[in-house]
Amino acid sequence: MTAVRVGLDVGGTKIEALGLGEDDTILARTRIPTGWGDEAVIAAVHDAIEALAAAGGFAVADVVSIGIGIPGLVDAPGGRVLHAVNLGVDELDLASAVRARIPVPVAIENDVKAAAVGAGSLRGDAHSMAYLNLGTGVAAGVVIGGMLWRGARGTAGEVGHISIDPRGRVCGCGQHGCIETFCGGGAVMKAWGRGGELPLRDVFDLAEKGDPLAVELREGIAFGAAAAVRSLVLSADVETVVLGGGVTALGDRLLDDLRDRLRRDAAESPFLASLRVEERIELLPAGSPAASLGAALVGAALLHGENPHTDHVNIEADTAGADIEPEGAVHG
Amino acid sequence: MTAVRVGLDVGGTKIEALGLGEDDTILARTRIPTGWGDEAVIAAVHDAIEALAAAGGFAVADVVSIGIGIPGLVDAPGGRVLHAVNLGVDELDLASAVRARIPVPVAIENDVKAAAVGAGSLRGDAHSMAYLNLGTGVAAGVVIGGMLWRGARGTAGEVGHISIDPRGRVCGCGQHGCIETFCGGGAVMKAWGRGGELPLRDVFDLAEKGDPLAVELREGIAFGAAAAVRSLVLSADVETVVLGGGVTALGDRLLDDLRDRLRRDAAESPFLASLRVEERIELLPAGSPAASLGAALVGAALLHGENPHTDHVNIEADTAGADIEPEGAVHG
Repeated sequence: MTAVRVGLDVGGTKIEALGLGEDDTILARTRIPTGWGDEAVIAAVHDAIEALAAAGGFAVADVVSIGIGIPGLVDAPGGRVLHAVNLGVDELDLASAVRARIPVPVAIENDVKAAAVGAGSLRGDAHSMAYLNLGTGVAAGVVIGGMLWRGARGTAGEVGHISIDPRGRVCGCGQHGCIETFCGGGAVMKAWGRGGELPLRDVFDLAEKGDPLAVELREGIAFGAAAAVRSLVLSADVETVVLGGGVTALGDRLLDDLRDRLRRDAAESPFLASLRVEERIELLPAGSPAASLGAALVGAALLHGENPHTDHVNIEADTAGADIEPEGAVHG
Repeated sequence: MTAVRVGLDVGGTKIEALGLGEDDTILARTRIPTGWGDEAVIAAVHDAIEALAAAGGFAVADVVSIGIGIPGLVDAPGGRVLHAVNLGVDELDLASAVRARIPVPVAIENDVKAAAVGAGSLRGDAHSMAYLNLGTGVAAGVVIGGMLWRGARGTAGEVGHISIDPRGRVCGCGQHGCIETFCGGGAVMKAWGRGGELPLRDVFDLAEKGDPLAVELREGIAFGAAAAVRSLVLSADVETVVLGGGVTALGDRLLDDLRDRLRRDAAESPFLASLRVEERIELLPAGSPAASLGAALVGAALLHGENPHTDHVNIEADTAGADIEPEGAVHG
């Protein structure tokens, strides 16, 4: 019998699950479809844990803690989901519902904050970093001294809704020209409006062919991402910003655009140049288990008697060099 | 004999000095003109300490620590001023120069960061706050858990140089539309360009009479200040933002404009409304000794063996309710 810490990254379409063994090796990763609405989400969480146990060759009874990352507003101390529009969940005591069938400590955390913990752990250096998620929306998680920084009211790292252009497009939040309207996948796809299987890739491809809207949107992605990184550096002053999320599936094409933008802006501003922002960014590798690993670490923090009611959750960056399966090995 | 902790706020035109007694009462405050250039600044610092001792009825030999807030770039661990354009100082080992005549621990800190420490101390609650200085330039100091938050490279709180309008005026830093170009006293006075004894007051007065440039600049001040406050809330998520600096001499007129702006923006954005930003701002009272008191506390931290080389300087908020002289009692 082994003690397994489970982490789940619950997305709008799939749940990624990960089991962390006693020696901080990743025992297994699985992926199953997400449900819609309270009951379906609860059922999918249990299904994911059972599938994970089967894949990892352990029993559900071996699970000692569960951490769940959720896209939306959560009450982390209370273990409740408050508003997760992509899951059809409005208010749900998810921790209690999971504990009713698996009686172990269960932590609920915002998915980006959980991913920040995982990204810091994977880097092996979480002294001062942010994980900037360029997904459907844009948000960051801040990790300082190895600990998740929540802030006074849990909005630390919400740089996606800093407005950077008063004449910009209206954001889903109601403001104009939020960072998210430039580099959030949802806003870019809406502005693009042409559909297609990989619309963001189309934007990058057609920008190279001179399509005016594609050029504007592609430049906007770098403009917004640069502003997001700089906002994190100029306010929280994190040493490193790790970028992840769906938009970063564009990989080096996105990173090159972003670095180019940061360099051009720095060339006009000695102050910006002194910040050396372009040296402080890195991309989360494709297929990284940061989100589910981070969720597992958030759940495991409950085992150590750490108090998730405080601003800080003590999650040690102790899984650096953990045995990560390559993306291809993730079960579909 | 008493043990006096001295704090100096060195400005472009004057030095404010404060002596803190053993029971955390303010023994005396004085104000003398600043010098220009290395030697004159060093001499003025000594003159200020001698004037303070005379005013407070103590001997310079009673001074046990000195903290100096400097407007510009400082190497706090090294006790050096790196770049203080308003003082004509480019690189100066000020701590050593002061210690050569008064052999006690001497700390050098950026003036806004020092003021943040002082403002937190005066509030009696420095759990999670920022001090936002709307002076010639715009910058903030962040205090978390009673400790000054410097960040990884000392740029935490530098929100003045977040660009919020790509078509905005060119900032002294080289970027366009920085927050500082909207609500920094220097940028506003330059854009106003009409001189006068109190140009910012003129801007507010003439805006009420419908002067188009005055209206634009006055609205810009609230626009920029609102963006600065929101950037601090959306990145570091501090519970409270205390505003100070020369621009806040406009008092309630500024605060009313800012609250109005925050309320109007919140009316368009449920997300912003949920942050309740307008309830989280307050004004540093006129004549507040926050800057010199903060400098004294930064200097005193050296006495307790606290290591200013770390990201955090432990400065306890232990002078709440200290016996502050009213502004009228400050010596000219």
